[in-house]
Amino acid sequence: MESPEQINAVAEAVSKTGARILRAGAFKPRTSPYAFQGLGEKGLQLIREAADKFKLFVVSEVMDLSQIEMMGQYVDIFQVGARNMQNYFLLRALGEIQKPVLLKRGMSATIEELLLSAEYILSGGNYNVILCERGIRTFETYLRNTLDIAAIPVIKKLSHLPIVADPSHGTGRRDKVPPMARAAVAAGADGLLIEVHNDPDHALSDGAQSLTPVEFAQLMTEIRIIAPAVGRRIP
Amino acid sequence: MESPEQINAVAEAVSKTGARILRAGAFKPRTSPYAFQGLGEKGLQLIREAADKFKLFVVSEVMDLSQIEMMGQYVDIFQVGARNMQNYFLLRALGEIQKPVLLKRGMSATIEELLLSAEYILSGGNYNVILCERGIRTFETYLRNTLDIAAIPVIKKLSHLPIVADPSHGTGRRDKVPPMARAAVAAGADGLLIEVHNDPDHALSDGAQSLTPVEFAQLMTEIRIIAPAVGRRIP
Amino acid sequence: MESPEQINAVAEAVSKTGARILRAGAFKPRTSPYAFQGLGEKGLQLIREAADKFKLFVVSEVMDLSQIEMMGQYVDIFQVGARNMQNYFLLRALGEIQKPVLLKRGMSATIEELLLSAEYILSGGNYNVILCERGIRTFETYLRNTLDIAAIPVIKKLSHLPIVADPSHGTGRRDKVPPMARAAVAAGADGLLIEVHNDPDHALSDGAQSLTPVEFAQLMTEIRIIAPAVGRRIP
Amino acid sequence: MESPEQINAVAEAVSKTGARILRAGAFKPRTSPYAFQGLGEKGLQLIREAADKFKLFVVSEVMDLSQIEMMGQYVDIFQVGARNMQNYFLLRALGEIQKPVLLKRGMSATIEELLLSAEYILSGGNYNVILCERGIRTFETYLRNTLDIAAIPVIKKLSHLPIVADPSHGTGRRDKVPPMARAAVAAGADGLLIEVHNDPDHALSDGAQSLTPVEFAQLMTEIRIIAPAVGRRIP
Repeated sequence: MESPEQINAVAEAVSKTGARILRAGAFKPRTSPYAFQGLGEKGLQLIREAADKFKLFVVSEVMDLSQIEMMGQYVDIFQVGARNMQNYFLLRALGEIQKPVLLKRGMSATIEELLLSAEYILSGGNYNVILCERGIRTFETYLRNTLDIAAIPVIKKLSHLPIVADPSHGTGRRDKVPPMARAAVAAGADGLLIEVHNDPDHALSDGAQSLTPVEFAQLMTEIRIIAPAVGRRIP
Repeated sequence: MESPEQINAVAEAVSKTGARILRAGAFKPRTSPYAFQGLGEKGLQLIREAADKFKLFVVSEVMDLSQIEMMGQYVDIFQVGARNMQNYFLLRALGEIQKPVLLKRGMSATIEELLLSAEYILSGGNYNVILCERGIRTFETYLRNTLDIAAIPVIKKLSHLPIVADPSHGTGRRDKVPPMARAAVAAGADGLLIEVHNDPDHALSDGAQSLTPVEFAQLMTEIRIIAPAVGRRIP
Repeated sequence: MESPEQINAVAEAVSKTGARILRAGAFKPRTSPYAFQGLGEKGLQLIREAADKFKLFVVSEVMDLSQIEMMGQYVDIFQVGARNMQNYFLLRALGEIQKPVLLKRGMSATIEELLLSAEYILSGGNYNVILCERGIRTFETYLRNTLDIAAIPVIKKLSHLPIVADPSHGTGRRDKVPPMARAAVAAGADGLLIEVHNDPDHALSDGAQSLTPVEFAQLMTEIRIIAPAVGRRIP
Repeated sequence: MESPEQINAVAEAVSKTGARILRAGAFKPRTSPYAFQGLGEKGLQLIREAADKFKLFVVSEVMDLSQIEMMGQYVDIFQVGARNMQNYFLLRALGEIQKPVLLKRGMSATIEELLLSAEYILSGGNYNVILCERGIRTFETYLRNTLDIAAIPVIKKLSHLPIVADPSHGTGRRDKVPPMARAAVAAGADGLLIEVHNDPDHALSDGAQSLTPVEFAQLMTEIRIIAPAVGRRIP
């Protein structure tokens, strides 16, 4: 998210074609300290307003336990990023609140390690954990990551927790998002995180992997066809 | 394949639910020299007879260029296994025949290397090459390999060659084959290689990853639902 | 570290054969929330006393920025563990103090990402950063990790920061520590982290990878032979 | 090897500073069919002459079993390249001769798989197998491969077969060859394969990873210092 206009335009477009939750990065974890770091609390206020306007839930990434209280005023779901999957202080702190936590798999975390990280939250008494497959690091570098689609049925068998997929970060390339989103649903995913930007070519970050609202609507149509093959129905 | 009865039973069952090609390993490339090595030429004769009876094509793995002539009497499609993806003598020899070649991606081959190996066959004048994604080796060891579903849309973009997926070898676990087969189709695969065995629990090799004919029929039903989402129709 | 007797015995033994710094885990980052989690602040006091007695420096792992002030009373060097290599809040906080930071490479972090994480500390004004190669995650699972010895000469070329190696965590197996420690020195490492335990078979954690004091002394003898090949001398 | 003058210059230079075996690629396995493919049998004759002149043994890569007889006239040791580590027809054929075989680890082969491939040769009755660690494929792409130094002590423990290292292919960069060669010796390697070229900047292939004869001599001096740390002496 970059500006009130941008966030509103996207929220309106995606809510019309079936999205239920708005994710927006108020704080951006960046590999380099010199890259764009997000809008901060002001950003969260804007997200909250846009979400309320279009009856969406808000999910946003928490990077340190010191942010939990402030962020709790604005977000419905806390996201723990891949880089923090084994930040046990943060996980324990999130075990003591009652809001849902979206826990992303670390870039080189095994499925077992992801489940054990979830255990840090669950063992504190917060049972609202959503797991997220977002791509692992392998020797194949044509795309940014290798989206481990097989992790979806594996987790469905090992755990009662819901598992969603993030094909935007998992591929890093706009034209690869729809096929991988369809694959995730066909493999049994409980949800998808899809980056949408009303003007991806001018996005401040992650533009290369964002769909336009029109592309997103087309993807939703395809997913509605696939869903019955796994015993689901998308309204 | 293990016996005439076994191959006939499987051929009949799969042909009824939509399979078009019969794959059977007459020669098995085994990591250890002390494991079951396949039935050899006698096996190929049995496959050919079973295939003719149920109007199926035959694909079987060639492991050395010295086998090409003999195998050519029985098979319609030559398979090059993952371990031989960069056996350039074999690839060049297959470039000089006219039968189709199913080229499996090496366990740690990049997409680019797979395409360059195909080039060894194409540059000899044999343009009938089918690529196969069969799982890559990563740090995740819960399943035997990580089926790189994203390789499917990547190859669809980079090459005109058809790309199929092998979820049986790509997962090594029977219950993971259907979700990954559905995912491959949803991502745009042109075909699937599925191991089917009429009595998987007593198979001499690969039993743990083989579907029963009933499970295969159920999978075909699901795939028929998914196909229209990628603009295809399965008769 | 587990008890005052144990820490004293180890501190005495290693200081006699050439060690200069004592590392001890007061807080243990464990993959499972149900495993032994360390002795906490009481542990730090014991380490400090043992170190003072044998004129050693103390290094210990900090897991959250809330621990920095308390730990600063006891430790000379803060260690950032592999799981926290991209915990940017922690890195920034460590950039604002003046004590040295030992930054361990993440299990799947590229060399470039390690250097960029160091940049988070350096950009805050703390220039005392020591990098540490401790093994990466690969498909090879015979040992716990693959110690990336080549990262040592690569980092020596790309950065002015010192680089040390941790063959104990990098292999997870006692008998593999000496050969990998020798290899690291031969490749140009500026230091080594070696786990030593006076009774490894009864250690509460990491026993399988700890040398006995006698094995450590033997290793130091071998390293004294190698050092001149890379223009160094160990007193 | 590219020309008689080039091969003679290198053979003379390396034999003076301690090399005992001359490796030269008469046939080059290239990822692309359109790259320089080697000099063939004429190349082998030139290598043999140069080796005889300076009392060196000859090792060269065999790519298909049809080459064994012809190559046997010129080479003392057959090399099996990483791409052919699981070419079982080739391995079996080499089990039936008596010349030593240098078996290189596949780019993504586990240590166990390497030992099982050696078993294909040994089970035929040829016990002269030399294993070679030449780098594995990982997510780290700063260098061409990750030289798995730990494989050396692991193999020393699991097998009686000698294990050598190839830091030239394992790094792909001239300045990284000496540190990794030293590391391999310090870890217990029984030998080294080092690319040397009298004019690396104009080499037709692998120039970027070749040492000059002067750099090679310097490396030998360093290795003579390290050898006693592992109980060896280099004459």
